[in-house]
Amino acid sequence: MPACAIAPRPRRIALLTDFGTGPYVGQMRLRLAAMAPATPVVSLVDDLPAFRPDLAAGLLPGLLRGMPGGTVYLCVVDPGVGGERAILIAHAGRDWVLAPDNGLLLPWLRQRPAALVRRLDWRPPCPSASFHGRDIFAPVAAALVRGRLPAATPVPVASLVGAGQTAERAMICYVDRYGNLITGLAAAGRDLAQPLRAAGCTLFGARTFCAVPPGTVFWYCNAFGLVEIAVNQGSAAARLGLGPGDPVAFG
Amino acid sequence: MPACAIAPRPRRIALLTDFGTGPYVGQMRLRLAAMAPATPVVSLVDDLPAFRPDLAAGLLPGLLRGMPGGTVYLCVVDPGVGGERAILIAHAGRDWVLAPDNGLLLPWLRQRPAALVRRLDWRPPCPSASFHGRDIFAPVAAALVRGRLPAATPVPVASLVGAGQTAERAMICYVDRYGNLITGLAAAGRDLAQPLRAAGCTLFGARTFCAVPPGTVFWYCNAFGLVEIAVNQGSAAARLGLGPGDPVAFG
Amino acid sequence: MPACAIAPRPRRIALLTDFGTGPYVGQMRLRLAAMAPATPVVSLVDDLPAFRPDLAAGLLPGLLRGMPGGTVYLCVVDPGVGGERAILIAHAGRDWVLAPDNGLLLPWLRQRPAALVRRLDWRPPCPSASFHGRDIFAPVAAALVRGRLPAATPVPVASLVGAGQTAERAMICYVDRYGNLITGLAAAGRDLAQPLRAAGCTLFGARTFCAVPPGTVFWYCNAFGLVEIAVNQGSAAARLGLGPGDPVAFG
Repeated sequence: MPACAIAPRPRRIALLTDFGTGPYVGQMRLRLAAMAPATPVVSLVDDLPAFRPDLAAGLLPGLLRGMPGGTVYLCVVDPGVGGERAILIAHAGRDWVLAPDNGLLLPWLRQRPAALVRRLDWRPPCPSASFHGRDIFAPVAAALVRGRLPAATPVPVASLVGAGQTAERAMICYVDRYGNLITGLAAAGRDLAQPLRAAGCTLFGARTFCAVPPGTVFWYCNAFGLVEIAVNQGSAAARLGLGPGDPVAFG
Repeated sequence: MPACAIAPRPRRIALLTDFGTGPYVGQMRLRLAAMAPATPVVSLVDDLPAFRPDLAAGLLPGLLRGMPGGTVYLCVVDPGVGGERAILIAHAGRDWVLAPDNGLLLPWLRQRPAALVRRLDWRPPCPSASFHGRDIFAPVAAALVRGRLPAATPVPVASLVGAGQTAERAMICYVDRYGNLITGLAAAGRDLAQPLRAAGCTLFGARTFCAVPPGTVFWYCNAFGLVEIAVNQGSAAARLGLGPGDPVAFG
Repeated sequence: MPACAIAPRPRRIALLTDFGTGPYVGQMRLRLAAMAPATPVVSLVDDLPAFRPDLAAGLLPGLLRGMPGGTVYLCVVDPGVGGERAILIAHAGRDWVLAPDNGLLLPWLRQRPAALVRRLDWRPPCPSASFHGRDIFAPVAAALVRGRLPAATPVPVASLVGAGQTAERAMICYVDRYGNLITGLAAAGRDLAQPLRAAGCTLFGARTFCAVPPGTVFWYCNAFGLVEIAVNQGSAAARLGLGPGDPVAFG
């Protein structure tokens, strides 16, 4: 693997995928356990909406906000795997983020104008056509934690796929286990008195769950810094009939 | 973090939550990987019934039974997060257990009369309103494995929320992947000839699955020391139409 | 634990179970974290089809293909737990594989004629009747990574349960998160022009997802080296109405 040295070395690896609970995350982790045995590997999220890099893009700034520096993030929501799409490596501060060039990185990059983005040139001898997370992303992460950057070419952000699109995602990007609806809208600076429209309803804001009676639908600024629609001790997804990709609007 | 020294230090961290497979466990683990990089972190269970500390309470003695000493257990089934509820730290033997003061700890505490329970006074500068597992529980666990107990005040068990309630949970507390129905009833000393009533049916006991023909509904003493309703190679949940919170009764 | 020395020691532990996301994997991992604290433990797959060692058997060669040597694999799809079935330890190269004697190992063993198979004689003092993964498999794995093989007796492959059956599984063995249908048929040497019959349809092969238009049903050679039925950005399971155990056939 032709590579140049980097310093400081990242110290842990986090996975963000739409792979679900099956063997794909397992094979990535088993390879990493062999290639980087002393490095902690964490599944940050395994159940991003399938086939939807646009929704993963809306979540990425929130999921990485407040997380410890010195992490390699492997972002694999990659319906174009095996085709012509490039693989990107972005570097900001002490963090490294790998993702397909399908728009997934853009909202996160907009918040980090000093980030350096490269297109990965390195490829292993015989990668599979359908599982680059295991065959390309994982060995690159292992190289980074050993202080080596595989062959890659700097590229301008303006040249990336989807670079002309708006950064904010005014839609449901993720439904959590409780049925809370996490949007791609940044919460910072929002006034809780501002109504949010979703599924034909008008929702008002509250500080958090226990600030409203059980069963009430509301929106609030969640722990990722994103606007979220929720029900105290209930499912907003069931109450509003909304799911990933459905639109919301302040207004 | 004002803190006092503890010895011996716990050596691993276990998570018990109703967070599901999404990013909440992931963010807790990524923070812990930075704060306690050499400490094993295990998800003991991530899919406890949502919003139901009463059911988690019924399982807790069974889930911790026979587990290795020297563990910090972070129990986060916490529908009151962000409100006035206290956070408790219990210490028994070489184990430490953190949980909201919502009844979750009580059955476990009843089995450990020598446990010392404290109310956590320490708070980080700016915790989120909705994710204390990440912002409060995780840094306390990291402090404990470094041998430091954050500021906390001893409290009597009789003062805890729900202290007057019965310890045993005569109900379904968890449905596992196979459809087995795990109750909160302790199995020790039960006679397998004793009938168990559930969903209008009367069930007899057996030693384990392969002691009954495939398809038979029965109850047995499970590997957590709890009474469980099961079907050999089938789903008791589907057969009886029962789920978390539904009642069962001996005799 | 009477035991004999082995060298080289395996360096990591992988779990393959039908346990789902609940507390069974959690208790196995917490025990392993105490017994083998410096050894990486990876869930290779936790959601194998319930009660179906025949389907796990069809996947095993693919799931272990290309994985790093020096691994202990604990394979627990074990509907006969608590009964008379034996527990097997197979040793091939630097890998060790534990499984119930229920056919699970056979296709993998057929690919490794030099493997040595033993029947585990060692038992802990008081194992539970229903959770040998925690009470027997886990301590054996911990012994192996310490360089000790517990008491076990070599047995011929021809004496194993199911030894007379065909190795290939011409059926759906696993449905992944996207609805892709993974069969037990080896992909090596297949001609993509060969039609595959499934659910009354005739499917043609393609190199990978992005080689066909979105929505097209096709078969391809997946990243485990197995034949898989898929839809580009869609669910083959939903389109064909197929699930674990359903038959497929070439030609």
